Amino acid sequence: MLPKAWIVSIGNEVVSGQIVNTNGAWLAKRLVVLGFDVRRIIAVPDLEEEVVEVFRDAISKSVDVVISTGGLGPTYDDRTSEFLAKAIGKKLIVNDEALKLVEEKYAVKGLPLTEHRVKMALMPEGAKPIPNPVGTAPAILVEANKTVIIALPGVPKEMKAIYEEYVEEFLKQRAPRVYRFEKWIKVTGIPESSLAPIIDKVVKKYRTVYVKSHPRGNELGSPVIHLYIVASSLNNVEEAKEVVEKAYRELVEEFLKLGGRVEELEINTVKGEEFG
Amino acid sequence: MLPKAWIVSIGNEVVSGQIVNTNGAWLAKRLVVLGFDVRRIIAVPDLEEEVVEVFRDAISKSVDVVISTGGLGPTYDDRTSEFLAKAIGKKLIVNDEALKLVEEKYAVKGLPLTEHRVKMALMPEGAKPIPNPVGTAPAILVEANKTVIIALPGVPKEMKAIYEEYVEEFLKQRAPRVYRFEKWIKVTGIPESSLAPIIDKVVKKYRTVYVKSHPRGNELGSPVIHLYIVASSLNNVEEAKEVVEKAYRELVEEFLKLGGRVEELEINTVKGEEFG
Repeated sequence: MLPKAWIVSIGNEVVSGQIVNTNGAWLAKRLVVLGFDVRRIIAVPDLEEEVVEVFRDAISKSVDVVISTGGLGPTYDDRTSEFLAKAIGKKLIVNDEALKLVEEKYAVKGLPLTEHRVKMALMPEGAKPIPNPVGTAPAILVEANKTVIIALPGVPKEMKAIYEEYVEEFLKQRAPRVYRFEKWIKVTGIPESSLAPIIDKVVKKYRTVYVKSHPRGNELGSPVIHLYIVASSLNNVEEAKEVVEKAYRELVEEFLKLGGRVEELEINTVKGEEFG
Repeated sequence: MLPKAWIVSIGNEVVSGQIVNTNGAWLAKRLVVLGFDVRRIIAVPDLEEEVVEVFRDAISKSVDVVISTGGLGPTYDDRTSEFLAKAIGKKLIVNDEALKLVEEKYAVKGLPLTEHRVKMALMPEGAKPIPNPVGTAPAILVEANKTVIIALPGVPKEMKAIYEEYVEEFLKQRAPRVYRFEKWIKVTGIPESSLAPIIDKVVKKYRTVYVKSHPRGNELGSPVIHLYIVASSLNNVEEAKEVVEKAYRELVEEFLKLGGRVEELEINTVKGEEFG
C-alpha cells in the first residue's frame, strides 16, 4: 500500500474556470514520482465551509499527505491559514518564526510591518512555517492525527520554489522507494472498442501492469490510439521493465493480427534510488 | 441562493498529473455563466471506492447538479456507469435507447455489436442516455434525490459536443437568470500587501462586489497586480455595472494616492436573458 495524497486547490478563480488548475497537475506528477498514491485533486472556492470540510474529510480518512495551494497572501480573501486552524481545532496565532521571515523580507526594502503583512505570519498553533524563497508569505506545515498538511501559496512560481527547496525533501522521508517503467505506443487503424478485449486480456494476465488507452483520432473514421503501458516495482526498475515488455509484445501481436500499425513513442524509467 | 454544482473528473491520467484538467475548467466556466455556484472540481482515479464516494457525497449534500467526465468508453477501465449505479443503489442494465444509439453508430460502418460495444449501453436503471454527436459512447443522465448527475465522456471534443448540443439546454431550465458585470484592471507600482487594506474597505462597503487580486510581478521588486472586480444581479446588468463602477472609482482614487498606475484591461457583461 502506497501512502495516499490529496491535493487541494483553493480559490474562486479555479472553481469558476477562470484559470486551469495547472498547480494541481504539477504537484500530482511530483507526488506520483515520489511514490505517493494521489487519490484526489480537489478545487474549492475561498469559502470557510468548503475548505474546512475538505481538510477534515482528509484527516478523517487518514490521508497521509495533503498539499493545498492558494489563500496565503495578505488580502482579505486569503484565509487558508484561518480555515486550516478551524479544521484541526487549533487557535490561529502569530507564529514567531513566520513573523521573523516576513519581517526580514520587508525590512530589506525599508518597509514596516503593517497589519496585512503580520497577517501572513498567522498560523494554527503548533504549525511550522516554511520559508518562501521568491515571495513573502511563508508556507505552513501542520500535523493532525495521521495526516500531514502542507499549505502552499497559489502563485505557481512561489508554489514550485517552496516545493522544490523544502517540501520535496520532507516528503522523501515519508515516501516508499518506487521503481517504474513506462512505455507509450501509438496504434493506428483499430477502433478502441476492438482494442478493448485485447487490453482486457493482457491486464488480467499481468496484474502489476496498468494499460490506459487515449483515443486521439476518430473511433469510426481513422482511429488513432495512444497506449500507455506502465508497471511499478518496489524492488528494481528491471522487474517493472520486464513485465511491461512482456505485456507490450502480447498486445502488439494481437494488434497486428487485426491489421493495425504500431509505433513506439516514448519510454520513461523512474528509479527509486534517485529519491532514497 | 444559486443552485450548487460539482464537477467530477474521473481518470488515473488526471489524478496522476499526466494531463491538466482542462475539461474541469471548461465546464466550470460554462456552469458559472449559466448562474450555477460551482463548489468543487474533483479529480479521482478510476477506482470504485473513490468514484462511488464522491457521487454519494454530492447526493447527501443535495448538490443540485453533478457533471462527471471520463470512464464511459469500451475498455475495461471505463467503469463510470457501473460506479454510478452502485452510488445511487440501482442495477446496471442494458438501456434499450442507449443500445439503439450505439448499434446505429457501428451499423453505418458495417460493424457488429460486440460485448465491448454493448458495454457502452450499460446504464443504471432509470437513466436517460444522451446522444454523442461525435463519438460512440452515449452520455448518461440520472436523478438521485435532489441531485441530477450527468456523466460525460472524457475526450474533450466529445464532452464539449454533448454539452453544447444537449446538456446546456437542459441546465438552462434549472438555472436562475443571472446578470453579471466584470472589470479587469492592472495596477502597477504598489505591493499587494499595500493594496490589501484598500480592497478590504471597498469589499466591506459594497457587499455584492467581489474583488480578487492576481499578482503578476514581484511583490517587493516591481509589483504588478491584475484586479478582477465583479458584481452579479438577479435583476439586470445595469445594477451590477453600477456597483462595480462605484467600487472601481473608490479603489482607483486610493491607488493613485499611493503613487500607483492604473490601466483598464477588459470589461465583460453576462446577460441573464441570453440564457432565459
